[in-house]
Amino acid sequence: MEYKELNLPSRTIMTPGPVEADPRVLRALSTPIIGQFDPQFLNIMDETSDLLHYVFQTENKRAFPVDGTSRSGIEAVLTSIIEPGDKVVVPVFGRFGYLLTEMVDRAGGETYLMEAEWGNVFDPQDVITKIKQVNPKVVAVVHGETSTGRLQPLKEIGEFCRENDILLVVDAVATLGGVEFKTDEWNVDAVITGTQKCLAVPTGMAPLTYNDRIERILLKRKKIERGLSMEAQNDRKIQSNYFDLSQIQDYWSPDRLNHHTESTTMLYALREGLRVIKEEGIENRIKRHTKHGKALSIGLKAMGVELFGEEQNKMPVVTIVKVPEGISEQAVRQIMLNEFGIEIAGAFGPLKGKVWRIGSMGYSSRKNNILHVLGALESTLTYFGVKVNKGDAAQAALEYYLEVDNPVVRTS
Amino acid sequence: MEYKELNLPSRTIMTPGPVEADPRVLRALSTPIIGQFDPQFLNIMDETSDLLHYVFQTENKRAFPVDGTSRSGIEAVLTSIIEPGDKVVVPVFGRFGYLLTEMVDRAGGETYLMEAEWGNVFDPQDVITKIKQVNPKVVAVVHGETSTGRLQPLKEIGEFCRENDILLVVDAVATLGGVEFKTDEWNVDAVITGTQKCLAVPTGMAPLTYNDRIERILLKRKKIERGLSMEAQNDRKIQSNYFDLSQIQDYWSPDRLNHHTESTTMLYALREGLRVIKEEGIENRIKRHTKHGKALSIGLKAMGVELFGEEQNKMPVVTIVKVPEGISEQAVRQIMLNEFGIEIAGAFGPLKGKVWRIGSMGYSSRKNNILHVLGALESTLTYFGVKVNKGDAAQAALEYYLEVDNPVVRTS
Repeated sequence: MEYKELNLPSRTIMTPGPVEADPRVLRALSTPIIGQFDPQFLNIMDETSDLLHYVFQTENKRAFPVDGTSRSGIEAVLTSIIEPGDKVVVPVFGRFGYLLTEMVDRAGGETYLMEAEWGNVFDPQDVITKIKQVNPKVVAVVHGETSTGRLQPLKEIGEFCRENDILLVVDAVATLGGVEFKTDEWNVDAVITGTQKCLAVPTGMAPLTYNDRIERILLKRKKIERGLSMEAQNDRKIQSNYFDLSQIQDYWSPDRLNHHTESTTMLYALREGLRVIKEEGIENRIKRHTKHGKALSIGLKAMGVELFGEEQNKMPVVTIVKVPEGISEQAVRQIMLNEFGIEIAGAFGPLKGKVWRIGSMGYSSRKNNILHVLGALESTLTYFGVKVNKGDAAQAALEYYLEVDNPVVRTS
Repeated sequence: MEYKELNLPSRTIMTPGPVEADPRVLRALSTPIIGQFDPQFLNIMDETSDLLHYVFQTENKRAFPVDGTSRSGIEAVLTSIIEPGDKVVVPVFGRFGYLLTEMVDRAGGETYLMEAEWGNVFDPQDVITKIKQVNPKVVAVVHGETSTGRLQPLKEIGEFCRENDILLVVDAVATLGGVEFKTDEWNVDAVITGTQKCLAVPTGMAPLTYNDRIERILLKRKKIERGLSMEAQNDRKIQSNYFDLSQIQDYWSPDRLNHHTESTTMLYALREGLRVIKEEGIENRIKRHTKHGKALSIGLKAMGVELFGEEQNKMPVVTIVKVPEGISEQAVRQIMLNEFGIEIAGAFGPLKGKVWRIGSMGYSSRKNNILHVLGALESTLTYFGVKVNKGDAAQAALEYYLEVDNPVVRTS
């Protein structure tokens, strides 16, 4: 078999990730390799850490990526702080909450589960009541659940945890850089994100930040690497070398203690993605994501399709559409992809086959993408015989855009 | 502070990795993102797996990358097969052997250590004797130790392990794609490599392959992910979700069971790097690496500097040079980097400050790089007052090249 050079079709990606990378990030990816201890590379590491502090809105000492996809960062935090028998409260309101329980379980922790019906989130007071009952070491929760398109309010939970010396770990994979997230103000002890969503960078790194409360645990669990000392032992040692944050933080400190070989190209991309965010300004970026999410919802409602989930805690960057009765959700996605070159997502678990998930994240969160996806969905549904308000979706979104962006006087 | 677009100096990288990526790989990195379940992306996954089979020279069912740097792949294999109390023999002849013991230890295994003086490797019979004494479940060993530049012969060890139903796990991070490695012929049960060395791809993925003997263990340790079933339990479950090969192999199988979000861009790069290897031909590529390694050694000897380590088991892709007495190894590397733009490496542990490590791997394994590094080292040593045979190094390498590549008749 002969293998040819990559020759991929053009795609408009309107899923909850991976989404389109900013073209400036794509360009940065082609930058030639420099060595991991080259002073110029160390400089890129420092700049990336600075920029992460900006995006996480934190004064924490530590902010760096783990070299792996989003879940690698979540596992790094949980496995580094959870010891056998530790109690962890996990409020679950969608698929990725269950992933947290999976990781707690594998780290030897005891999960105290709360489950909300898919489409809802928790009243913070209910979470606090559960925390009071359990008195856990850690509360681990997802901020934005892409499986249901819902956003969990965190401020009150954070306040209670801090007052009671409980650690709050948040999976902000789907929100950071597109939805308001205030690490310090909300008293979040550790936050993990992904690159392939609102940061508009390809998948493959998991930026995270944590504070001194987390670091104190890491230092107690630290073990000198074999090779430096074969005798070193620590009964509380972290069960992974790759995810040992006590070692990774040394690599990212001025000591530069060797751990893994930092992923050169992905770091170029992450730095560029963060630089672009700084240039846009984090508040402007969040406003942009809010605006395009709103335009999408307005358009879909005008089309006459039904949105899923309670409106109040909807993620601005994920919009969930109920599949009209009698049609195949997969067939619609196939037409969208093959004819329009637009990718939207199906669903997991109880929602599988019942909804589509439309993302508007990162570089994909822009006017032309929103207008295209509305037009394509309308055409496709019409093709399958669904009765929609023809022409209304794009028109409603267009009117919204012209109103908020650039009020023009129409000539009659 | 203002952050500008990346603007990096041009570097010639002659370290044992990360080395220069093939320019075709750099171009592939800029390819726009497509979704992880896009049929075109699934096709790239399949092609990458096929190409990995070619490079690993194996008929194994499984060959795929773990999304992380090289050591993530090693940890994935060890943590997926080693259970608490399992005996593991680890013959250590340099720094990266100790890393294996570190990972065995964290997975709960019992390490039975063998140590060779740095610069030597093991007589396979001595390893076999140790294996007979211990009767371990696993033997874990490094193929090429970049810390010492030595290559461990594996064939006899593999034969003995297979006959006695012991698993052989090999770290071929520094050798695969540049040095002969025959997974099936040598009876290796699991092999892990890195992208940033002889594959000429940036750091960030850990391709691996394993056979049915390994897979049988994975299947016994498999646990259904929470979210699908909260009740599912397995007392032998793998302690990591991210490194759970029983799950990752399902993601890479036709079932495409969701695990992580595959790192799009790095997979583009890996596929292109492997495609380029197939085009060159694995045997030709190994010959090329051997040739340039030999040219480098010939040049260095002609210069009058001393090489480190026994000649017989020298890695063709790493050449270790003793630092002449009375000069600072670091100062030499600084001049090389800042004035010539050439990076060579220092050393670890007992060799720190005493040797330089010069790599000739992947795209960096080429004529002009070898001739440049010889010239630059000669100039730099001369600058520091070391007596070298001026002009002889490049001349000797040049003569070797002209002889083996393209015998020309000199006009007098």
